[in-house]
Amino acid sequence: MSQEIPYKIYLSEDEIPTAWYNLRADMKKKPAPLLNPATLKPLTAEELSVVFCRDLVEQELDDTTRFIAIPDEIRNFYKMYRPSPVVRAYCLEKMLGTPAEIYYKFEGNNTSGSHKLNSAIAQAYYAKKQGLKGVTTETGAGQWGTALSMASAYFGLDCRVYMVKCSYEQKPFRREVMRTYGASITPSPSNTTEIGRKILAEFPGTTGSLGCAISEAVEVATHTEGYRYVLGSVLNQVLLHQSVIGLEAKAALDKYGVKPDIIIGCAGGGSNLGGLIAPFMGEKLRGENDYRFIAVEPASCPSFTRGKYAYDFCDTGKICPLAKMYTLGNGFIPSASHAGGLRFHGMTTTLSELYAQGMMEAVAVEQTSVFEAATQFARVEGILPAPESSHAIRVAIDEALKCKETGEKKKILFGLTGTGYFDLVAYEKFNNGEMGDYIPTDEDIKKGWATMPNVDL
Amino acid sequence: MSQEIPYKIYLSEDEIPTAWYNLRADMKKKPAPLLNPATLKPLTAEELSVVFCRDLVEQELDDTTRFIAIPDEIRNFYKMYRPSPVVRAYCLEKMLGTPAEIYYKFEGNNTSGSHKLNSAIAQAYYAKKQGLKGVTTETGAGQWGTALSMASAYFGLDCRVYMVKCSYEQKPFRREVMRTYGASITPSPSNTTEIGRKILAEFPGTTGSLGCAISEAVEVATHTEGYRYVLGSVLNQVLLHQSVIGLEAKAALDKYGVKPDIIIGCAGGGSNLGGLIAPFMGEKLRGENDYRFIAVEPASCPSFTRGKYAYDFCDTGKICPLAKMYTLGNGFIPSASHAGGLRFHGMTTTLSELYAQGMMEAVAVEQTSVFEAATQFARVEGILPAPESSHAIRVAIDEALKCKETGEKKKILFGLTGTGYFDLVAYEKFNNGEMGDYIPTDEDIKKGWATMPNVDL
Repeated sequence: MSQEIPYKIYLSEDEIPTAWYNLRADMKKKPAPLLNPATLKPLTAEELSVVFCRDLVEQELDDTTRFIAIPDEIRNFYKMYRPSPVVRAYCLEKMLGTPAEIYYKFEGNNTSGSHKLNSAIAQAYYAKKQGLKGVTTETGAGQWGTALSMASAYFGLDCRVYMVKCSYEQKPFRREVMRTYGASITPSPSNTTEIGRKILAEFPGTTGSLGCAISEAVEVATHTEGYRYVLGSVLNQVLLHQSVIGLEAKAALDKYGVKPDIIIGCAGGGSNLGGLIAPFMGEKLRGENDYRFIAVEPASCPSFTRGKYAYDFCDTGKICPLAKMYTLGNGFIPSASHAGGLRFHGMTTTLSELYAQGMMEAVAVEQTSVFEAATQFARVEGILPAPESSHAIRVAIDEALKCKETGEKKKILFGLTGTGYFDLVAYEKFNNGEMGDYIPTDEDIKKGWATMPNVDL
Repeated sequence: MSQEIPYKIYLSEDEIPTAWYNLRADMKKKPAPLLNPATLKPLTAEELSVVFCRDLVEQELDDTTRFIAIPDEIRNFYKMYRPSPVVRAYCLEKMLGTPAEIYYKFEGNNTSGSHKLNSAIAQAYYAKKQGLKGVTTETGAGQWGTALSMASAYFGLDCRVYMVKCSYEQKPFRREVMRTYGASITPSPSNTTEIGRKILAEFPGTTGSLGCAISEAVEVATHTEGYRYVLGSVLNQVLLHQSVIGLEAKAALDKYGVKPDIIIGCAGGGSNLGGLIAPFMGEKLRGENDYRFIAVEPASCPSFTRGKYAYDFCDTGKICPLAKMYTLGNGFIPSASHAGGLRFHGMTTTLSELYAQGMMEAVAVEQTSVFEAATQFARVEGILPAPESSHAIRVAIDEALKCKETGEKKKILFGLTGTGYFDLVAYEKFNNGEMGDYIPTDEDIKKGWATMPNVDL
């Protein structure tokens, strides 16, 4: 294949995948099931259906069907912003002087600003299909809330977002995007829920937490006729929907005969990375091809590199199911960091199991070095990356520089999950030289572990 | 041509135009030349070269060459974000229930957030080619400054931006994007220039104006070895560069045999509209095809619909050349409006002359109706549009609704010039029901006219 590779490899709309790929189907040892925290038994479809939509529960529990058809209604929405391009980073390669070839799958060219829309539209569709009136969710940094607001507007669903109070106050623009899409935004904790009132009474000045916002959103969903709760990462169903990223990336690279040697993605809850690597990891699991996979996490919240592989609660409030995952403990408090999307204490069960099996690597990076990479990238490649995505850029640059030393022409693919237009406070700190690195001490990590339940399975 | 039209028509990278189209070459009656305000004689290349780069001066004065080759260096940069898609607004059509076909050329998928980058990269390239060290400019809303910062970073040029002080203070995020791209941003008026110091002494509390920022940027460029001044709209050279919008749009529509009946764009200085309509207007001028062209301006700054066609200064400080254009007077103060990019008192000479010849129409719209259209559009088409671009959306919707009444299946093309991620303060006002419409009185218009020079040519 000596065809010249363009800057951007676009697929046509009929090349948008017609089915999501369910990576779990190719795993011999499956990810451990979610447990009911009361019974410590695997959650049943019935139990899950109180909180989630029916079809999504089915997807959540299905670890054997390899391909699950994407309904036309979702594919039509995908057509408004997909296929997203695989970009050959010619300018970055030149600037680094590396013999490596660098590619990135860019998911930021939509108004939600990230890959989150891929799952939001699917979850909204199934809610609509079930005849629901609306959905509830929580949002921290705001990308997920924005994506769900857009998806809900499209299907005419009511959308109620519980936004961590400090984000609500510090990110008024994120809030306004969601309002423009017709969502109602409540700063959490709030007086609208029992758990919110309880927390407010106990901690009157609290600025909230993701754990608390989850609890409020779940309470509203389960106590309001015609509503369900939806979540933007961690769950199996979300990884399933995000497989469009990897399927498109693979199809685009295949066109030019490019087989990546290394595939890199940032990892918070793990959904974008899980989606990006899915079809490649499938080949590796089936023994058809080999790839190196690198999960990049912030040094401030290093669940893979410093966490334990054990059952833990998915939320701080301990009302959500138990998941077996690499976790820092549900009570772990991440050090200050501007990558709001990477502050979850655990990691999705699928990636956790694959990491435990030695199928992928993980590395933790510090935020100043991440913003250095982000700025380098922005200046030559044009795109202003989200802090989260810039974790992947950091490691892609590091790997490309290693190639420069060794002279190897490795092919590097990374996921550029989103744009940083709503993260300029962080860029300002970096531009002013006021950004620091905050890494949890061993003591902090131990404190986090102490909050984990004692479930030995 | 019965081929199904996709949601997004993308061209391939080798279909990016290899030459800009110079619409003036097809005009029998040419736009009037810029005049030296001291001599009232047409400005010579020599005089212009003190302020602008050599090659750009040549482009500015050339009204006979139909196609001007795009240098490879610029085309390679274009490849990072172009070709931009022509989108078929299927969802908007469905929501409106119109038999009309609606298309938009979307220029917002790049970090500058708008079409401005098309000319910024060209101007930076010619500055670099001339061996200059840097460029200066002014910015109000910030889109142009962002685009020029990106272009300068790419070519390793120093970039000094004078940002209207009130914008500098109200839009810290815009400022940080520019800083991230390595530009230095000075709030205007400032102590760094003679004119700035003079204005500060005279009006100590002033929050600045575009006119003043232009004067400072020009002073720095002409008093600093190795620097020139660059401008983001109004000039012929900018319309020339923006012709890539129209050339790509036409090529994309031609692929599917779509001939638009109506072409709509917002108009501030006129560069995006001039670029969008260029090849279509060329056909109309040559008698090959007919199209309706509609310029949409804000009711708060209605240069076409309520201005005079006469010679006027391009800046409030009266140090810039005189241009014959539809103008409200260089001293006209636009009513409050959130479309910062549409607040220029005049209109580029080419569009002014075409409007005077009856080759195009113009309509003024009020901002609350613009934000209504923006919100409708965002909810079904996904993209959060810039307030400026939303002026075109308003009129596209109005024309589509007329088709609904008459049953006509007109084909409507409009320019979606940018995204509104940095305009959430305006959306917030609209969402809160606090946005008003401010239309200049006849008295205001007369006051503006009184500031025009008495040049009868």
